Amino acid sequence: MRIAELSKRSGVAVPTIKFYLREGMLPPGERTSPNQAQYGEDHVRRLRLVRAMIDIGGLSVASVREVLAKVDSPVDNIDELMGAVSKALVDPPADVDPDALAEVGELIDALGWDCNVKHPSAASLAAVFTAARAIGHERIIAGMRRYAEACELIAAVDLDYVEGEAEVDRVLESVVVGTILGDSAVGALRRLAQAAESGKRYPG
Amino acid sequence: MRIAELSKRSGVAVPTIKFYLREGMLPPGERTSPNQAQYGEDHVRRLRLVRAMIDIGGLSVASVREVLAKVDSPVDNIDELMGAVSKALVDPPADVDPDALAEVGELIDALGWDCNVKHPSAASLAAVFTAARAIGHERIIAGMRRYAEACELIAAVDLDYVEGEAEVDRVLESVVVGTILGDSAVGALRRLAQAAESGKRYPG
Repeated sequence: MRIAELSKRSGVAVPTIKFYLREGMLPPGERTSPNQAQYGEDHVRRLRLVRAMIDIGGLSVASVREVLAKVDSPVDNIDELMGAVSKALVDPPADVDPDALAEVGELIDALGWDCNVKHPSAASLAAVFTAARAIGHERIIAGMRRYAEACELIAAVDLDYVEGEAEVDRVLESVVVGTILGDSAVGALRRLAQAAESGKRYPG
Repeated sequence: MRIAELSKRSGVAVPTIKFYLREGMLPPGERTSPNQAQYGEDHVRRLRLVRAMIDIGGLSVASVREVLAKVDSPVDNIDELMGAVSKALVDPPADVDPDALAEVGELIDALGWDCNVKHPSAASLAAVFTAARAIGHERIIAGMRRYAEACELIAAVDLDYVEGEAEVDRVLESVVVGTILGDSAVGALRRLAQAAESGKRYPG
């Protein structure tokens, strides 16, 4: 299909498609004449993936570019891939209090989790601990063990999802989609569950 | 304390404090002369709360202002409060596919949750379903039931947290802090749990 049709099919405006092409976020089409190219179903899907990352995931164009670079590079194993995508999706805080990070390390140990405090999300969690203390809400930290146990269930769903992907070249994509759409889904479900739990505890 | 001391204690620059005062995000200090005011511990805590919402929660100044308006208004019951804060924190999508919303309604019914599809987060979840389908990842929707069950555990922690707040005027604040810091904590813990689960399934 031509770029106008690609725009119609994907819902992305032509100038935006051209921008993505220039930025390498969308592979070039097959050139059929000096100023015309043909695009296929892969382009439609890639454009929808980019829009999902931006519109649903709230990612910046720079982050999308970084994540797509991972999606497009060969991968050795799922474990490495999950780590790479996590790092691209997480913007860890610049300054981390070593005591808070040590506390995150203790939580990880207590849970028996096979991961370490060098993971960028450990720094993000440490920043939450520090912020909670600074505003006099350190009590929130006590709930982290139960949060973590709920997140074990979520992570099992996530890994099942990635494993269920039959096409090898879609494994990476499914990690990205699962992580980004999953964040939005968990956020929405948490709020609905709060409403449900609150309605149950305080009826009427 | 004077504004310079307030700035030092809270880590927020004086011009930013003045901006928050003008915007009504920080209550005025006690005026001691035509161009001087005294601030107290409440101001320090409020400033740290504002910074936590912006720096950790990633909220815009407009969203912070809206949430604070809820925090500062009298509240009838926790259920209503949770709903009001949720609405201030959620930016539901403008266009929602009615079929996807109906699907969210079916999920809510199947879970026996006491909440309805008018909750803004129902629309957010419907948008995730629509996006998943558009990019050929509708398989992700099948995992929502297990996600929801994990979110029930998270919501129970959240309600326990709010109930554990002894000072009445801090109940609203704890809903806000719990929701915002909780989102960051859940996001970080989910990624750490994925790393742990992935390391367990694919050792070495």
